[in-house]
Amino acid sequence: MVDRPGARVRAAVVGTGLIGGSVLLRMVAAGVDVVGWDPDEATRRETRRAGVPAPDRLVEAVADRDVVFLCGPLPTLPATLVEVAAMTGERCVLTDVGSTKEQVAAFAAAQGLTHRFVPGHPMAGTDRAGLTAARADLLTGAAWVLCPAPGPATTAFRWLAELLVELFEARVVPMSATEHDSAAALASHVPHLLAGALAGAVQRAPLRDAILALAAGSFSDGTRVAGTPADRTANMLLGNRDRVLRELAEVTAFLDDLTAALRADDAPSLTARYDEARASRAALRDRRFDAYDRQFPAGGDHAAEVSWLRELGVAGGHLTGLHVDADTVSYAARRPVAD
Amino acid sequence: MVDRPGARVRAAVVGTGLIGGSVLLRMVAAGVDVVGWDPDEATRRETRRAGVPAPDRLVEAVADRDVVFLCGPLPTLPATLVEVAAMTGERCVLTDVGSTKEQVAAFAAAQGLTHRFVPGHPMAGTDRAGLTAARADLLTGAAWVLCPAPGPATTAFRWLAELLVELFEARVVPMSATEHDSAAALASHVPHLLAGALAGAVQRAPLRDAILALAAGSFSDGTRVAGTPADRTANMLLGNRDRVLRELAEVTAFLDDLTAALRADDAPSLTARYDEARASRAALRDRRFDAYDRQFPAGGDHAAEVSWLRELGVAGGHLTGLHVDADTVSYAARRPVAD
Repeated sequence: MVDRPGARVRAAVVGTGLIGGSVLLRMVAAGVDVVGWDPDEATRRETRRAGVPAPDRLVEAVADRDVVFLCGPLPTLPATLVEVAAMTGERCVLTDVGSTKEQVAAFAAAQGLTHRFVPGHPMAGTDRAGLTAARADLLTGAAWVLCPAPGPATTAFRWLAELLVELFEARVVPMSATEHDSAAALASHVPHLLAGALAGAVQRAPLRDAILALAAGSFSDGTRVAGTPADRTANMLLGNRDRVLRELAEVTAFLDDLTAALRADDAPSLTARYDEARASRAALRDRRFDAYDRQFPAGGDHAAEVSWLRELGVAGGHLTGLHVDADTVSYAARRPVAD
Repeated sequence: MVDRPGARVRAAVVGTGLIGGSVLLRMVAAGVDVVGWDPDEATRRETRRAGVPAPDRLVEAVADRDVVFLCGPLPTLPATLVEVAAMTGERCVLTDVGSTKEQVAAFAAAQGLTHRFVPGHPMAGTDRAGLTAARADLLTGAAWVLCPAPGPATTAFRWLAELLVELFEARVVPMSATEHDSAAALASHVPHLLAGALAGAVQRAPLRDAILALAAGSFSDGTRVAGTPADRTANMLLGNRDRVLRELAEVTAFLDDLTAALRADDAPSLTARYDEARASRAALRDRRFDAYDRQFPAGGDHAAEVSWLRELGVAGGHLTGLHVDADTVSYAARRPVAD
């Protein structure tokens, strides 16, 4: 592992679809020494045509790298993690971009990889798929969850966070894997369920073509993610099943409140419920952040540092930078101002 | 009523909020002789400051006009329709822009106004409100439902359809009020319910701020219309209550299919349901249209013409133009090619 991220970093991206391909293209654009690998031979050829090295054998892609981004489909992640860990040195940081974190974090812990595997999740995407849909700027400025852990893992977290800020202008959101999966259930997974249900009901509707003729903002926005490749969505939901079902119950409880008011022709109550719903949109739109710095000892067990980091993410904050010297780690953070 | 729409038309817009204001601004930009009126005095002053006449009394705004767009809130529409009808001549065409059509069409029929009231609904909007949010191009190119009716009403429909194509480049979707309300339930009203339920559940969630920190496409898209003014949404849903509840049941049935597969850890079944849902997105994205012309006699009872128009809208088609001469009305239409 090098001391300073950036141009001297040697990186690899394993799985060069939409997200992995976008990670790869961004690093190429930033002048990073990066190689790509994908199990699909045609994708490797496509990568080479873009002027990026893409060896045929995985070991050639990842050996001697400082960091490997694991970007394949969720179900392949555990096997790939084990394989890449065995092919790389103890100082190589591993991370992933999967949409659920608790399962992979637990798996990495069971494999004794917590000290160098930093679970990650950039909050960006499109409903397209594959390297041809990848773009160097897809992840620029995105919220990018990283899961810190105490002990030696903190060193890997710091190094990767600094790299992501430098290369992707990432807003690094530090969270425990458990809190990530809880928040992502409502931020992303349940919205995919609702979009699927709406798009599916329209597909079955006798008036489907008339509905599509009228489809302006609300239908089009509300079903966009239903255009995502179906197996990707299914894997995401299955990877966070219990929490998704639990949070869906909260959404259907609110839906029941709305429909009870509607059924009763109760305009004041229906309006009041919508005022409540609207408050979360207003909070999203009007969020203001306080910027501040925080220092911790560079050494030690990092327990206080990790607690602070996790609390920052749960409060809706993020890191905008950090700097490590011999004695101290200095974080630059932003935290939402309370309503 | 003049024979040719366009620059010589004298128009009025009653209720100059987001939609009415956008109708007004577009007509001003097109050089139409148009006046605005709003019950709110400050809004009238704001209209005048924009250089548009806005008399204080409604009768001054609508008397001697060729067309009046009724754009106030849904609950005020019946009273305004009666009032404006009494202030205008038999040759003045009246139309509205409300998000439900059956109630107002039935009310107009009971008032003996079907021959000159053409129920309308432009499928466009934003989550903002008021004249300050209005834009001359908000409705440009929008799907704009108009409800034709046989007999003398057909003349009013033709005239208004031609005006909307000329001034707004509207894709005029001809539909019966009943079919509009059925299609709009899934195209717009149920999506508002789902968006409200999701935004409301997030507002109540202990992790709200963390969820907002992760809010990328799916949450942000899926809740956008929950930012709409609450009373506007409530009125829209109440105005189409029974159909909204019925179509919501279709959506929750599909949601139950998705969650059953998720609960059973049944990846193939979950993927198959998402493939089904995705087909409606693909249909929306990939729709291709055949352009064709159709003529009808200018006179007569217009029954065949109205049947054809309604059938065109139900098939997902729209009008791109029309021309009326002494003997014939010629429609230019586009109809989706079957998948």
